[in-house]
Amino acid sequence: MALRKKAKGQLIVLSGPSGVGKSTVIAELLGQRQDIHFSVSFTTRKPRVGEANGVNYNFVERDEFERMIADGELLEHAEYVNNYYGTSLKVIQEKLDAGIDVLLDIEVQGAAKVRSKCPDAVLIFIIPPSFEELSRRLRGRNTDSEEVIAGRLQKAREEYKQIPKYDYLVVNDKVSAAAEEIISILIAEDCRTKNRIHLIEGV
Amino acid sequence: MALRKKAKGQLIVLSGPSGVGKSTVIAELLGQRQDIHFSVSFTTRKPRVGEANGVNYNFVERDEFERMIADGELLEHAEYVNNYYGTSLKVIQEKLDAGIDVLLDIEVQGAAKVRSKCPDAVLIFIIPPSFEELSRRLRGRNTDSEEVIAGRLQKAREEYKQIPKYDYLVVNDKVSAAAEEIISILIAEDCRTKNRIHLIEGV
Repeated sequence: MALRKKAKGQLIVLSGPSGVGKSTVIAELLGQRQDIHFSVSFTTRKPRVGEANGVNYNFVERDEFERMIADGELLEHAEYVNNYYGTSLKVIQEKLDAGIDVLLDIEVQGAAKVRSKCPDAVLIFIIPPSFEELSRRLRGRNTDSEEVIAGRLQKAREEYKQIPKYDYLVVNDKVSAAAEEIISILIAEDCRTKNRIHLIEGV
Repeated sequence: MALRKKAKGQLIVLSGPSGVGKSTVIAELLGQRQDIHFSVSFTTRKPRVGEANGVNYNFVERDEFERMIADGELLEHAEYVNNYYGTSLKVIQEKLDAGIDVLLDIEVQGAAKVRSKCPDAVLIFIIPPSFEELSRRLRGRNTDSEEVIAGRLQKAREEYKQIPKYDYLVVNDKVSAAAEEIISILIAEDCRTKNRIHLIEGV
């Protein structure tokens, strides 16, 4: 569906526990909505098998990340399971000013910081159908030890407490359905009266 | 797309100037989303060619309408171009309680009353691409005199002042696109965290 010309792009924040399938949902979403700019986060964690630098993350060393913090280059950053994650401010601002929607994949601490700096950001939290299913998905990845998996599940329970701060809640039981819900949310946000007031004659 | 089980139905209010094509958009919408209950308004105006009692409106006499007002049977009512329009409360409440979305087609005065009584109602205003196009559509209907058309255009300009009170603004330049936007709004509203908090385990 063609979108109307926008005065300003929409900042969209996507969060969800490790293992929920966020990357798959995002890939599906970006496949259908190629006009969205996906902001690739910076991180100090090591790439997993199949992850590429500049695609899944910009992988940097710890001292480089700390320099970016010191130089104020980040919209937000947080430490999560002993690694830094952060979002570069400059590219995002350019895209939003050009009327392009920007999607951020960040965890709950970062999302709260984005909300405080950009009150108009749309915050979406993705949950699995159940904790049992999340546990199954984490084990199915075959990348983490049982100890790490237990840590991720515990972290997920803590993250859930932040859900009331999110505007929308999407359940990823089927990737295509979750992506479709997110696309509907983006269309709806685009239809908000405050985002379309420029379309009205004589008001 | 299958919708998740809801705790409560959503009340949706659709407004827009006479001639914007609201009935056509609603027909398209209800064709795609047969789970929505369309609340047929009561009115004292005479049926237009092709309009059926109980379908487009419940057509009643003025004294019957005034009895309904007196007996508190209406969620809202308003007078518009010398005719009464109103919404019956009972059916709506039953549907919402059963988890069914209810769509109301009402003008701006009625919408404001619904908002004050039901703060969670979703208010959508439909505009034409331009006033010129609205004028063309009104003339194309061949049902109204030039004087009535001029009155409707003037009324439309007044209604436009109420647009900031609406949550969403949909431009009806193409019926299918307008209906698709409204469907997206309904899906998004269904995804709101406050409407899905019952899906979260342990919160």
